[in-house]
Amino acid sequence: MKKNVTIIGAGLVGSLLSIYLGRRGYKVNVYERRGDMRRTEITAGRSINLALSDRGIRALEEVGIMEEIRKICIPMHGRFIHNADGSSAYQAYGKEGQYINSVSRGELNRKLMDLAEAKGANIHFHHSCRHIDWKERCIEFDNRDNDQVVENFELLFGSDGAYSAARLQHQLQHDRFQYDQYYIDFGYKELRIPPAADGSFQMEKNALHIWPRGNYMLIALPNVDGSFTCTLFFPFEGEPSFASLDNKEKLDKFFRENFTDAYSLMPDLGDEFFHNPTSSLVTVRCYPWIREDQFALIGDAAHAIVPFFGQGMNCGFEDCAVLDALIGKYDHDWGAILSEYQALRKPDGDAIAELALNNFVEMRDKVADKRFLQQKRIEAKLHLLYPEKWIPAYSQVTFSPGIRYSEALSRGKSQDLVMQPFMDEVMNGADWDNEAFLQRIIAKV
Amino acid sequence: MKKNVTIIGAGLVGSLLSIYLGRRGYKVNVYERRGDMRRTEITAGRSINLALSDRGIRALEEVGIMEEIRKICIPMHGRFIHNADGSSAYQAYGKEGQYINSVSRGELNRKLMDLAEAKGANIHFHHSCRHIDWKERCIEFDNRDNDQVVENFELLFGSDGAYSAARLQHQLQHDRFQYDQYYIDFGYKELRIPPAADGSFQMEKNALHIWPRGNYMLIALPNVDGSFTCTLFFPFEGEPSFASLDNKEKLDKFFRENFTDAYSLMPDLGDEFFHNPTSSLVTVRCYPWIREDQFALIGDAAHAIVPFFGQGMNCGFEDCAVLDALIGKYDHDWGAILSEYQALRKPDGDAIAELALNNFVEMRDKVADKRFLQQKRIEAKLHLLYPEKWIPAYSQVTFSPGIRYSEALSRGKSQDLVMQPFMDEVMNGADWDNEAFLQRIIAKV
Repeated sequence: MKKNVTIIGAGLVGSLLSIYLGRRGYKVNVYERRGDMRRTEITAGRSINLALSDRGIRALEEVGIMEEIRKICIPMHGRFIHNADGSSAYQAYGKEGQYINSVSRGELNRKLMDLAEAKGANIHFHHSCRHIDWKERCIEFDNRDNDQVVENFELLFGSDGAYSAARLQHQLQHDRFQYDQYYIDFGYKELRIPPAADGSFQMEKNALHIWPRGNYMLIALPNVDGSFTCTLFFPFEGEPSFASLDNKEKLDKFFRENFTDAYSLMPDLGDEFFHNPTSSLVTVRCYPWIREDQFALIGDAAHAIVPFFGQGMNCGFEDCAVLDALIGKYDHDWGAILSEYQALRKPDGDAIAELALNNFVEMRDKVADKRFLQQKRIEAKLHLLYPEKWIPAYSQVTFSPGIRYSEALSRGKSQDLVMQPFMDEVMNGADWDNEAFLQRIIAKV
Repeated sequence: MKKNVTIIGAGLVGSLLSIYLGRRGYKVNVYERRGDMRRTEITAGRSINLALSDRGIRALEEVGIMEEIRKICIPMHGRFIHNADGSSAYQAYGKEGQYINSVSRGELNRKLMDLAEAKGANIHFHHSCRHIDWKERCIEFDNRDNDQVVENFELLFGSDGAYSAARLQHQLQHDRFQYDQYYIDFGYKELRIPPAADGSFQMEKNALHIWPRGNYMLIALPNVDGSFTCTLFFPFEGEPSFASLDNKEKLDKFFRENFTDAYSLMPDLGDEFFHNPTSSLVTVRCYPWIREDQFALIGDAAHAIVPFFGQGMNCGFEDCAVLDALIGKYDHDWGAILSEYQALRKPDGDAIAELALNNFVEMRDKVADKRFLQQKRIEAKLHLLYPEKWIPAYSQVTFSPGIRYSEALSRGKSQDLVMQPFMDEVMNGADWDNEAFLQRIIAKV
């Protein structure tokens, strides 16, 4: 057993990992590039609100902190769809009582840091990883004053996100490293719908709002203060795009025409649009994630994904829970723990990356499609009547932490193939809402 | 028009590019990391002999140097297959008179450097690219004495191979750079079959020899001195693998049992196997390849591929010819030239990367398969009778420089789909060698 653990990155995953390892009796030191977000104003304007769901919740419950976190969560029971023609539609995410949770990244991160410190973790801020010497097992950091600090490590985790410095050091000093970074042609920008004058929500509170527009979309998630954090997912180039909306007049005209109801609720649109940064959306796949018994990547550093399934954080939290279970299984034998951690999580990381990319098309385009919505209704009914035999893909990923992502991906694909001929019938007028029809589908599973 | 061109890398593609640009009236400076291979002994033991074929030949003919190069080429008309049971088989690459050419990388590179200098290129050896400043348009090199040399550039090409330093500088300073490096689980090692005592070839001279063994293979290409350069493509790990053959006894036993005829012709096997390096096989896909009118990647630096289609050099040479044609088309307007160069060559680079990966399975496994060989025979006959309507995939890539790689990939896939039901018939005993049967296939194209 190693006594000392070093973690690079005090984000959501690094902080939760500290809590898990502190509970297991490890002495944990965390090095974070940025300053302490609990003490300084954080750079606003580039966060997408998070959707905490069952996989993440299970990982938080395991260390007994979910009740604390629940205080800053707002349940979202379904998608509230704002169509281009001014009509709206509602699509429940799951069965009665199933929901996902809107939570602010900053709030959640601050709470997790507090809890990590309470479990004994020592967080060192303003420490930027510059170099790792894998043989000597030491790390060079640049600190706040650009002085170099060298720390030894016994067991190291890289939980420093999509642009991980730990991963880069791992990659540059690894023979035959598999590496793929893939950017979609879309960026995102944070916008805001403030609370009403009386502090109340200006739209349905308990939903994730979507304005699907084919090649782009706007979404909005509720905050505890009555506001909504909106995110515009938009092409970088072309017409329309971040490049084409280059002045306030064009911006206002575009929003007025395409997001009419939202536009009327966004008094600071111009300021936000032109001052908040435009951020990129990257998928990173790499291998290996580990070095013998001394190092592992975890969370986005191992598997950065696009945000369209709301699973980035949930997947990272699940990484922590899986790793923790393996500490028990292998009694602190880190060679065995890390090897099985990688074997289990690499295929699941690849699967959720693919699911998340696919879901972008679903969110921005298909949720406004009649056939798609009809299929969702039929699948929801199947799930209600045959809860064991038919679980919609979204529910497998979001509400079924017992099903691995890789399994959800393959089962989802099979189910979709089964559905297509029946959807042809339905679109040709067949009556689907009867047991005989639904039984025919179930017989194909 | 720019007057000065800077090229990083004096390998095969950098040297040919210098010849093309010299002919067009550009002043060319080439910076090469290594020393001058014409003056010093090159590091032996890590080259795969090259197979120069029609795309490469056309690019060499265009600048009038093919006759010079032909002197160091040995024609290979087909695959000579050495089966595990001691039997052998021969499979022509194309029609009568079609062949590929075995040529030594070192010999060819030396000749191309001579010709580049004759066209006015200035090659600076021992210059290792360390940093590129894209705004100031200057490059820092480390020279032989580890002094730093800074050179300005007007128009820059990165032709420095699979592990390109120019590409790294491009990538590190480019927003949303698409990058994928993929290593197969196999490495390669150079071995050798010397000439007979009288200087003659010990096996059929005009063929590419293959010992296909399912999960691994040995190949041998002839050299002008009567020897064969052999390459073992072998798993890094597992049984058997480079890791498992860890002493001379195991090595001899393995070669004696699995490559019996070759083994008897390899007197220095032990020395070569344990002293020559084991090299990796990487595929690199990236995007973009260019920066406005000032920079382009070319050859392996843009699209490193595995060697199993014998197209790495041919593709790089074709890059040069395509670029040159665009200089004519756009009259030295480099913004337009580089933009169309990328638009044309990126899909072709991706296609040949995929074709090359697929061909590994074909070479090491399928060439020993009865159905596969039968299909090749039928396709050869189709090509003979209907030369316009049916061109086998291999011939499209190797002998049809008029067909783009991307087109060859998609046509090859379609043809294979057409063939499968007919192959079922043939394997069930149908007589294929008659016009009626072959007409039925052609009718499906």
